[in-house]
Amino acid sequence: MSEKVSEAIQHSQDHKIEFVSLLEDFVRIPSISTDPSHDEDMNQAVEWLSTQLRTIGCRDVKIIPTAGHPVVLAKTDSFCSEKPSILVYGHYDVQPAENQNAWSSPPFSPHIKGECLYGRGVSDMKGQIAAVLAALQSIRSQSDLPVNITFLIEGEEEIGSPNLENFLREHHDLLKSDFVLNLDVGFLGVDFPTISYGLRGIASFELAVRGPENDLHSGVFGGVVHNPALVIANVLSGIFDNSGKITLPRFYDQVLSLDEKERQELNRLPMDEAYYLAKTKVPQLWGEQDFSPLERVAARPTFEINGLVSGYTGQGEKTIIPSEALAKITTRLVPNQTPEAVYEQFLEYLKKNMPPTVEWELSYGSGTMAYLMDLSNPVLKFFAESLELAYGEKAVYFRDGGSIPAAILMKQILGLDSILSGFGLPTDNIHGPDEHVHLPTWFRGIEALIYFFNIIDIEYV
Amino acid sequence: MSEKVSEAIQHSQDHKIEFVSLLEDFVRIPSISTDPSHDEDMNQAVEWLSTQLRTIGCRDVKIIPTAGHPVVLAKTDSFCSEKPSILVYGHYDVQPAENQNAWSSPPFSPHIKGECLYGRGVSDMKGQIAAVLAALQSIRSQSDLPVNITFLIEGEEEIGSPNLENFLREHHDLLKSDFVLNLDVGFLGVDFPTISYGLRGIASFELAVRGPENDLHSGVFGGVVHNPALVIANVLSGIFDNSGKITLPRFYDQVLSLDEKERQELNRLPMDEAYYLAKTKVPQLWGEQDFSPLERVAARPTFEINGLVSGYTGQGEKTIIPSEALAKITTRLVPNQTPEAVYEQFLEYLKKNMPPTVEWELSYGSGTMAYLMDLSNPVLKFFAESLELAYGEKAVYFRDGGSIPAAILMKQILGLDSILSGFGLPTDNIHGPDEHVHLPTWFRGIEALIYFFNIIDIEYV
Repeated sequence: MSEKVSEAIQHSQDHKIEFVSLLEDFVRIPSISTDPSHDEDMNQAVEWLSTQLRTIGCRDVKIIPTAGHPVVLAKTDSFCSEKPSILVYGHYDVQPAENQNAWSSPPFSPHIKGECLYGRGVSDMKGQIAAVLAALQSIRSQSDLPVNITFLIEGEEEIGSPNLENFLREHHDLLKSDFVLNLDVGFLGVDFPTISYGLRGIASFELAVRGPENDLHSGVFGGVVHNPALVIANVLSGIFDNSGKITLPRFYDQVLSLDEKERQELNRLPMDEAYYLAKTKVPQLWGEQDFSPLERVAARPTFEINGLVSGYTGQGEKTIIPSEALAKITTRLVPNQTPEAVYEQFLEYLKKNMPPTVEWELSYGSGTMAYLMDLSNPVLKFFAESLELAYGEKAVYFRDGGSIPAAILMKQILGLDSILSGFGLPTDNIHGPDEHVHLPTWFRGIEALIYFFNIIDIEYV
Repeated sequence: MSEKVSEAIQHSQDHKIEFVSLLEDFVRIPSISTDPSHDEDMNQAVEWLSTQLRTIGCRDVKIIPTAGHPVVLAKTDSFCSEKPSILVYGHYDVQPAENQNAWSSPPFSPHIKGECLYGRGVSDMKGQIAAVLAALQSIRSQSDLPVNITFLIEGEEEIGSPNLENFLREHHDLLKSDFVLNLDVGFLGVDFPTISYGLRGIASFELAVRGPENDLHSGVFGGVVHNPALVIANVLSGIFDNSGKITLPRFYDQVLSLDEKERQELNRLPMDEAYYLAKTKVPQLWGEQDFSPLERVAARPTFEINGLVSGYTGQGEKTIIPSEALAKITTRLVPNQTPEAVYEQFLEYLKKNMPPTVEWELSYGSGTMAYLMDLSNPVLKFFAESLELAYGEKAVYFRDGGSIPAAILMKQILGLDSILSGFGLPTDNIHGPDEHVHLPTWFRGIEALIYFFNIIDIEYV
């Protein structure tokens, strides 16, 4: 490491109190995107961010309106085509903190207890944005920035980023970069600095089975009419075999296999059977026995009944044969499955297995493919090196079982891969009361970013 | 037939207008049991009935309060142990007629159109009670009553007879009779004067399957947790084999077989495949292929999912693994199944088939055995002869697939069989708008009752 990097690290260590104070200022603004009574706070958050971005040397700080809350778009100064360009994604909105009594201290009056700083949004994700600001300030105190950074900080992540897709399409030209840094994902544990390099995709369906024209009296018609609730139970039941495999035709044909290196890497993680049992409180785990629990979550597709309803579900009894039954279903997809193909497979299965005693319909809701970053992409290695330098632990590569719209949209619209990481921990209680950030982990995150921006300047071609 | 019977029949034919007028008076009273704003009308109906019963020669007309609406209890005069004693069951309450705009004329202003009299309760079952009054008046115009009759007319049938069981237990001594005449059931068609001699029983259950402690994120946990909606689909699906038979252990062991004579009698009825297709509008019937549709409804047990619910069932998507799934289930029972045995069979099936990945509970709701009157019971033959004399058609014997609490209670508490019949038709639209009674069928019903009370006096030992 060059001297200027060491000095930037030293600067960050000398200014911990200042950086915590910066984060506290940000957390004091109750920028709750879902509640219109906080619209003024949203504006205040945008103004505060703009000021900070200018302070660390951004030019062209723009507050761009959308159909919802505005986006802050900013570029660091002295952009130079020789330097790597990073699109830093973030969001300044936070979850509500309705149940204030459940908090040990007021959610928007941040305070330190032990090694942690408490407050709504302190981990998700104002702390992550503040870490970038702190890292850049530390670097700037010694030298010019070694990278070009474009900030895209939206205000609607907690409500599903409804306007992000349009924003990316409309401002495509302003967002040109080499890759995205998305610190909204977090570590798997305090000793596991984590980079997520994959996400599952998703496809949603609604299956309707229609029997008699109206609910029927089960005494008068019981024995001659196929009960739609039984029919939907039959067809849903048949979608799995006894080993937990999905029986839809050709369902696994496109599924990308886990290679041995990936399996080893995943199974190094602390998410074993005991972990999932403790998290879910189920009496026993379930799923494909030829894959470990984490492999199943990270890299295997699922077929999940999210909702099921038929007939009378109130108090007491109603002796009917229901006229219809409905199931809401989502499948989690892995590379290289497409939502459209899975819809066709489901349809083909139903055509073969639905009895002639009912009418039925399968509706397609929405879908997105899985995301997988090539593990040989050098930026992953550079970020991993930075994490190891800062934390003294080898970074782990993780495939997340969920679907993060921002990362998928960045890939689809901008063609950019995202480094998915962040200095939050699973224990931070994001979205719940007493949200907090572990300050030692967070301080090291600032250092990791200082390392990363410097390493990538040197190494990235 | 003796001359006095012919004269009573002649009397009934000469007084048709008077009898219709009697029925119209009864129908004008909006005795809606479910609506407290009609409590005064309930009292008026009771008073009206008491007056009519006294007019046809009842002594001891009592209005007996219950926890709900009162019961009218009355005995014909000149009770004599030499004569057969009949308990006539009826109800003076009617269904609401809320959607008055759907009626061609006001529901409580009875009027004749074509061959039918329209009004709420005219078929169910004020018309049936009025037919008994008219028959007794016709007989009394010529002679003494040949039978002892006890009237039990309740005011809560349309709300499930919640106080009938207690009433029967408390007034057991006043109700001693040879059998019950229950005209609340009706004919299968205008050319099919019908006697129902059997009812199915019923048992109700609720099955709960519990998986994770809370709804889980399907991205974070999809692949390791057994979805309770899938588990309930699996176990419900396994309850039927491909031929429509129920797989619960020993389920059919107690089932009384249909004998050849019963099968012939049932299959004489107009309720064939086309009938059930037209009534239900399903694309194809379903059920045990070695029994005709009507045999399945009349004499075969069922297992029906009345309600099924799990997870998110609102608009849009929610990507969860539900924490639980619930099914409401009723089985229709046939002789000689017991609700308790079926519960044990269901429990045994679940213990064998529920996976260790969930917790579950089967709750027993309520149950009653099936009812079957011995076809060799002579009162059935006498009633059938009376129907044939009045209608000129051979009466049909039917086993009703439903469960009529009054008939079951009469058997269980009083030890009395019930002749289940009545002069309503399936087309009368009871409980719906434009309820009506077919007057030619109704007039012949009065004649059938005149015959019956006389035949039974002569023949019954």
